[in-house]
Amino acid sequence: MPEESLLRQEIREQPHSLMRLLAATTAFSDARELLRAHNTRAIRLVGHGSSDNAACYGVYAFALLGGLPAVRDSISLPVYYRSESRLEHSAVVALSQSGRTPDVVAYVERARAQRAPTIALTNDPSSPLAEVADVTVPLLAGHERAIAATKTYTSELAALAILAAHLGGRASEVTDAISRLVETMAAHLRDAEIPRLEKLASVLAHAGRMFVVGRGLEYATARELALKLTETCRVATTALTSTDLAHGPIAAVDSQFPVLAIASLDDALPAVLSALDRARRAGATIVLFGNAAGLVEGVAGTAPVPSVPLPVLSPIMSIVPGQLFADSLARARGLNPDQPFGLTKVTLAP
Amino acid sequence: MPEESLLRQEIREQPHSLMRLLAATTAFSDARELLRAHNTRAIRLVGHGSSDNAACYGVYAFALLGGLPAVRDSISLPVYYRSESRLEHSAVVALSQSGRTPDVVAYVERARAQRAPTIALTNDPSSPLAEVADVTVPLLAGHERAIAATKTYTSELAALAILAAHLGGRASEVTDAISRLVETMAAHLRDAEIPRLEKLASVLAHAGRMFVVGRGLEYATARELALKLTETCRVATTALTSTDLAHGPIAAVDSQFPVLAIASLDDALPAVLSALDRARRAGATIVLFGNAAGLVEGVAGTAPVPSVPLPVLSPIMSIVPGQLFADSLARARGLNPDQPFGLTKVTLAP
Repeated sequence: MPEESLLRQEIREQPHSLMRLLAATTAFSDARELLRAHNTRAIRLVGHGSSDNAACYGVYAFALLGGLPAVRDSISLPVYYRSESRLEHSAVVALSQSGRTPDVVAYVERARAQRAPTIALTNDPSSPLAEVADVTVPLLAGHERAIAATKTYTSELAALAILAAHLGGRASEVTDAISRLVETMAAHLRDAEIPRLEKLASVLAHAGRMFVVGRGLEYATARELALKLTETCRVATTALTSTDLAHGPIAAVDSQFPVLAIASLDDALPAVLSALDRARRAGATIVLFGNAAGLVEGVAGTAPVPSVPLPVLSPIMSIVPGQLFADSLARARGLNPDQPFGLTKVTLAP
Repeated sequence: MPEESLLRQEIREQPHSLMRLLAATTAFSDARELLRAHNTRAIRLVGHGSSDNAACYGVYAFALLGGLPAVRDSISLPVYYRSESRLEHSAVVALSQSGRTPDVVAYVERARAQRAPTIALTNDPSSPLAEVADVTVPLLAGHERAIAATKTYTSELAALAILAAHLGGRASEVTDAISRLVETMAAHLRDAEIPRLEKLASVLAHAGRMFVVGRGLEYATARELALKLTETCRVATTALTSTDLAHGPIAAVDSQFPVLAIASLDDALPAVLSALDRARRAGATIVLFGNAAGLVEGVAGTAPVPSVPLPVLSPIMSIVPGQLFADSLARARGLNPDQPFGLTKVTLAP
């Protein structure tokens, strides 16, 4: 295992890949013009894995920045069940870092056959997904060598926010805010949170299962953190909204079943804090991520991030310590974070 | 612990509660007329826990039986973030067995304020949710005493199928098919699958974590089985689509991390079988539920169900052995299936 994993190197590259994305204004303008020309009234998001987690964020980004309803659409309905029912005046935003996920490509092909406008967000602008979509927004994250996606995920989040802002007439406000966020992220990465995360990893090294809780905007972060921990650390993780934790799964919590949560300063924070109160009463070990992580008393550990210029952008920052934590926890568990068991970079399974 | 748990008694009551629902034709006609009067072009489904799992099924039921796009909508966006963006010409179908989940009630209140038609599916027709909705479809499942929802879940599934069929002009076809399904379910419950499920429970008694895989229609079943196992057996479960299993989580699978899957005869089955091949190569212990469970070779155990008159109805049947299995596994792990730790019947947390 190298001293600095590929995974950690790519986590550190995120400010650079985000800066490149900010400079790619033509693709976003093209996407906006396509959607306007089709009188788009709703967005259908599709993706798997980390890209589906980014799509969870997209639901919020399009509503809060673009004023447009957005949904994570069923891929199975058109692809396996040949269903023709679809949202009227809707456009497709398909996410895939490789651009080669077969059923996402098939979904876009069917949407085009129905004359819906289609936009691909992919790190490979020569991929099948890019070929089939009307407009491609390249993620410009550079070659991702680690198997666990990190820089392509944050680029997907930023691309969704920028695209939504273009639709909502807030492009310059949001790109300015992301620029400032990126500077803060770079400083945060320089400031070496590693010892804090390694200490957290030693606290949780023997936990084989964890809940990861978020709500609203940060539910995407909870899902992505859970996925990173499952694939790199072989931990059984379940991502839950704070309300769903109370609807059953709280019954499984005890001191051996830690609860990780994303606590950020936004309108859903009270719901997260309420769920954490409940988890604490159940005896859970609690670890907090997010820009409000430092504000909560009586937890086993925190991995706070700096606040961001616009609350709607917080997921782009909040995931970073989670990515670093996955790297640290993998090492603490004797695993190579660059080599998840049985995975390859491009997922071609149906 | 009583010899026959409340949970198991209520699982056995499901044919009766479904028969009562089939007789409640007025509520479904009222709901259909409401949606027609509003020129409804899309359905927004909202719920938490088991009701959200039923909503996953609703996405398929409305598309395949009603010819209408349906989505599980964000509750946070209107309730916490005060977002006004919503799907045009859409109606709300809100699911809550108690009818008292606060943010679901708040969601419906906001939808009504925006003049969207609203339908409540609840087991308590005098609940706050029923009071605030335009039309209530009562689940008629009778008092549910066990904390883990079983008969209210299958009644929610059936109510969604019947409502969708009313919209698609297929009401008599679908209610006839559910009648036949209910007879088969009653015979299946009499035929005492208990020894098979107790043997399965002894195989899995020491597994603290499990993946539960489904795709398409049966993804709802995978989610509901995972939730039952987490809340009654304190097992860490993650429900995944078969494609998402390959996008990362497969890396955590080994002989101590079993994979449960729902295999039913429908168009998504090949995707499930492909994921199982992969899980088998990773050394997973595989256990199958669903009406195609008996058709797959080389698995550690199966809990098959009879086939159903229409494939779109299979989730109503497929979950039954999963419910019984949760009861058996709880006992095998020394837990009382009627008393999940720290849960009450009505979830009032935000």
